[in-house]
Amino acid sequence: MDIDISLDGDKSYKVVIDSLGVLNFKSKVAIVTNPKVAGLHLNYLLSKINASEVFVITVPDGEQYKNFDSLNHILENCFVSKLDRKSTLIAFGGGVIGDMTGFAASMYQRGIDFVQIPTTLLSQVDASVGGKTGVNNKFGKNLIGAFWQPKGVYIDTQFLKTLPVREFGAGFAEIVKMAVTFNKDFFEWLEEHDLSCEQNLQIAIAKSVQTKADVVSQDEKEMGIRAALNYGHTFGHVIEHETNFTSFLHGEAVAIGMVMANKLACKLGLMSEDEASRIAKLLAKYNLPLDYEIQDIHSFYDDFYLDKKSLDAKIKFILPSSIGGCEMRDDIQKQTVLEVLKEFQK
Amino acid sequence: MDIDISLDGDKSYKVVIDSLGVLNFKSKVAIVTNPKVAGLHLNYLLSKINASEVFVITVPDGEQYKNFDSLNHILENCFVSKLDRKSTLIAFGGGVIGDMTGFAASMYQRGIDFVQIPTTLLSQVDASVGGKTGVNNKFGKNLIGAFWQPKGVYIDTQFLKTLPVREFGAGFAEIVKMAVTFNKDFFEWLEEHDLSCEQNLQIAIAKSVQTKADVVSQDEKEMGIRAALNYGHTFGHVIEHETNFTSFLHGEAVAIGMVMANKLACKLGLMSEDEASRIAKLLAKYNLPLDYEIQDIHSFYDDFYLDKKSLDAKIKFILPSSIGGCEMRDDIQKQTVLEVLKEFQK
Repeated sequence: MDIDISLDGDKSYKVVIDSLGVLNFKSKVAIVTNPKVAGLHLNYLLSKINASEVFVITVPDGEQYKNFDSLNHILENCFVSKLDRKSTLIAFGGGVIGDMTGFAASMYQRGIDFVQIPTTLLSQVDASVGGKTGVNNKFGKNLIGAFWQPKGVYIDTQFLKTLPVREFGAGFAEIVKMAVTFNKDFFEWLEEHDLSCEQNLQIAIAKSVQTKADVVSQDEKEMGIRAALNYGHTFGHVIEHETNFTSFLHGEAVAIGMVMANKLACKLGLMSEDEASRIAKLLAKYNLPLDYEIQDIHSFYDDFYLDKKSLDAKIKFILPSSIGGCEMRDDIQKQTVLEVLKEFQK
Repeated sequence: MDIDISLDGDKSYKVVIDSLGVLNFKSKVAIVTNPKVAGLHLNYLLSKINASEVFVITVPDGEQYKNFDSLNHILENCFVSKLDRKSTLIAFGGGVIGDMTGFAASMYQRGIDFVQIPTTLLSQVDASVGGKTGVNNKFGKNLIGAFWQPKGVYIDTQFLKTLPVREFGAGFAEIVKMAVTFNKDFFEWLEEHDLSCEQNLQIAIAKSVQTKADVVSQDEKEMGIRAALNYGHTFGHVIEHETNFTSFLHGEAVAIGMVMANKLACKLGLMSEDEASRIAKLLAKYNLPLDYEIQDIHSFYDDFYLDKKSLDAKIKFILPSSIGGCEMRDDIQKQTVLEVLKEFQK
């Protein structure tokens, strides 16, 4: 299955969902990956690459290493390998690898090509479309970065066979997010189908990627509806920040964030308790966490301001308006939000 | 005098050559400058700015501080000042400040606006057009960066009254570069006019900016004729690298680089000795260095490969074909270049 991502100028590219074929490059290539993925799958990837020279650069696995130091490590290795402006970086790993590799590609000699070969369900459905690249810092997540589009994305579900169960769930959370915010039919399809079947899994990935692609192609620089992709993220980012990016996988934090957003949506009469339960039930099917113990609701609230989606100090919440639609709201009283947060204070 | 810089999409902007007027901003502003410029001119600039909040961020003066650490310092101060996506960075200083401020703007929350108020002759004629931003690292100059266009450039020659003589000369070298490569009439005008007259100085800056703007608007991403702006730079970058960015100002290294390029051009029969002398004489008028003692011609030659303009390990030289024109040559025998370099070995 090929999905065309249509963007302005010469930035369009394809997402190919299939077994990896031979990949041809016009010059040098550097594969950026982590030690774990390299040990499991590098051999397979190397057998598919046709380039004048191939280099491998590894960075430690984990969101806490998605920082300036790792970025600099990637760039220094590019210089040592004497990559030129015709060279290509290949992001081979999850979202952390994809975000940093894309950001490095955007700035190496003021911009070279990069290709994504995502190896986690999360990065296959989420990070492979949108052109967002970047790193975290002590002020929060993804606060430094660039919009830089890949030249192609290759999704091979065989990499998911070695994926830990928790990571599979984290990816599933993003699939649920796409369905809840934009596609009721897809949500019902997910309630009825089992993703342990390879073919169903490919269909689910394709539906997610296509949904995100439709949104992103209408709104590349995130001025409008693309913000809806942040459903669950406003809360989720704070949870990740408070737990120093160590307790939860990104998708797990987003799952809890969606539960929080749903509670707020119910309180405002945007969705029914029954719909919120169906979403929670679908998330629980893949063992996602649905609860988080908030220590201090006021400091949790203050941390919303660290999120880059806060313009002019107005906090924007993406809230589902029943299943298959959503609203962006920046008019919600602090007291209303605090009441929802209080339900998570044990 | 206003010069329109026409670029694709919504990227076009104006270069205004005049006394600074009131500048209006829609949200917060952070002025990025160095301690010296701040002490001399910040008061004047602050009196012209109309914004909801104004912050000042200083970084040390000098090419050796144009690095990841200073970039990070700028970004951290932006976060502490809680700049949002509608905020603007103002680059207030020379090329180092402009390049780093633009690069910081390109990545802060994946890109915010920036404005240039260049305070050196070099940055007024050169860095204010082209959209090139970036930092140096141990592998060379400007090897990490982004293309990010300012929203406006304001050139006020009153800042040049406090500029050291050497820095004025360094800026003049870039003016000569524009004239030699693209505009014979302008070269002759420079031979005949004195830039200590304010009005002549404004005209010279305007002619330089217009010439560069014409080139850049045809070739924003430097795939073709824009490379001609690197006349003198292929040699100059190596000189700066060998002297660790401390012995020469950028424009001084470029002046020596032009002398070297001219010798190569003469050897290949592209220009006459007489023309090379006229260029040297014009450079000498503003006390620019014309000579550099090369220690090891082979290591000097190898350092060309660090330059980002080297694609596929072919070294590209921009050589004047008489005054007012130039050629890009990637077919020059190593031996020929070494013979030229030998003339600089004492």
